[in-house]
Amino acid sequence: MKILVVSAHPEPRSLNASLARFAVDHLREAGHEVRVSDLYAMKWKATVDADDFPDEFPGAFSDKSSADFPAKSSAEFSDDQGRLHVMAASERATLAGRLSPDIAEEQEKVRWADAIVLQFPLWWFSVPAILKGWIDRVFTAGFAYGPAVPPPYSNGPLAGKRALVSVTAGARAGAFSDRGIHGELTDVLHPLQHGLFWFTGMAPLEPFAMYETNALPEERFEEARQAYAARLDRLFTDEPVPYRTLVGGDYDHDMRLLPDVEEPGTTGLALHTHPSGR
Amino acid sequence: MKILVVSAHPEPRSLNASLARFAVDHLREAGHEVRVSDLYAMKWKATVDADDFPDEFPGAFSDKSSADFPAKSSAEFSDDQGRLHVMAASERATLAGRLSPDIAEEQEKVRWADAIVLQFPLWWFSVPAILKGWIDRVFTAGFAYGPAVPPPYSNGPLAGKRALVSVTAGARAGAFSDRGIHGELTDVLHPLQHGLFWFTGMAPLEPFAMYETNALPEERFEEARQAYAARLDRLFTDEPVPYRTLVGGDYDHDMRLLPDVEEPGTTGLALHTHPSGR
Repeated sequence: MKILVVSAHPEPRSLNASLARFAVDHLREAGHEVRVSDLYAMKWKATVDADDFPDEFPGAFSDKSSADFPAKSSAEFSDDQGRLHVMAASERATLAGRLSPDIAEEQEKVRWADAIVLQFPLWWFSVPAILKGWIDRVFTAGFAYGPAVPPPYSNGPLAGKRALVSVTAGARAGAFSDRGIHGELTDVLHPLQHGLFWFTGMAPLEPFAMYETNALPEERFEEARQAYAARLDRLFTDEPVPYRTLVGGDYDHDMRLLPDVEEPGTTGLALHTHPSGR
Repeated sequence: MKILVVSAHPEPRSLNASLARFAVDHLREAGHEVRVSDLYAMKWKATVDADDFPDEFPGAFSDKSSADFPAKSSAEFSDDQGRLHVMAASERATLAGRLSPDIAEEQEKVRWADAIVLQFPLWWFSVPAILKGWIDRVFTAGFAYGPAVPPPYSNGPLAGKRALVSVTAGARAGAFSDRGIHGELTDVLHPLQHGLFWFTGMAPLEPFAMYETNALPEERFEEARQAYAARLDRLFTDEPVPYRTLVGGDYDHDMRLLPDVEEPGTTGLALHTHPSGR
């Protein structure tokens, strides 16, 4: 199968870079085709701006150099002349095949892949900014969401692809357990698991996590690497997280879960997972 | 009081930029001192790298230009010679007062502020990458977390400050309601509300949200602006989200919630909020 590994750590000798290389080697040895987006090595541009849509804003953003907070009236956002509306510009550029080349290349990799593996350190309970920038810039309207593609959740434009998060955290596992103070890892990663993967139609697997990674003894690393290998071996056979589908009859027209669909006592984000699987 | 408004939208004529200016004007008219971090206008560097720690890595990152995925063995991350360990480097530079100047300036603003307002569009159920980069780079070890500062949750290093998220979303409100398919907004923003603000000791207020902002009629904008003004007027009087404290006796030594502390039937992230307030 075809697998895209996306890696986001500034230090090539870091645990994360090491795990990304391990995943690439392991998957290739298993006979898969693997491509890599090593975001720091690629000097990936993290911020969405007008340069992402060269047809509409040739050199526009680069010309803006006002470091002062613009003193404009509060109603002028309705004047559309030359204004960057991110979703609209992103959709026009995507459908016309006129996105900036770095974005187009990453979209091609995502389209090509049967599975995507994201390897990153958990910084402030989320992805590093450079990886958020890969998500913000690559998953454009017209590619990953919006009226031009199939509706979100289960039948979205990237349906059929699998997604695995592999994350390292300094905290102990207990702090991310079901009663851990940081919140259960699957809930903390909800914006990624449900908000990016499931929304676009991908099938997210349970995240793979390594804890206490600020001072990891060699034997624990070896153990964790074997556990990671086992998860990679089951990339196409593990059951994905059983999120509810939008078209499956569980939600009303306002995208709210219908009354009494859930197991009694279920609250919060777990409402959106089939109880049989959680 | 002293308030820092952080804004993250590439277009000065956008709804978000307009709301940020509105907040600044409104707070100043009420007699507050206001400072602004308009991240796009500042051309804020989003990615953490060795340049953030100039003492340890003089010009180090700029010299690295290998766009290829480094072919290193999987164990070499234990060799610390010249290796960037983000948390350790960040803590040393913070404690020595030797962070890169753009980070030091933002830390000074955060220290100065009695309240922080983050104004941003919800992109992929989270902050835009440039704002994640403000969080990743400004909230260093030794400033916001780590052994050199007070422990997290409630008595953290930034205790006494208030935090308000003001977010715009294209979706309808129902989709972010308690049974909405995207997840309840407060849960989707958990990494920010509980993971950044509460972790560092700040008191997060309920987020302020504007929905369906891709095509907002003028009269709805005016309504929303008045609602925002009312929230800003209560910035120092509204009850913060009643998250549980680490030192309040609710958690064990492994940072897990003690058995039977919660209201029967409570699950998920709501476990970490006092039931009286949710």
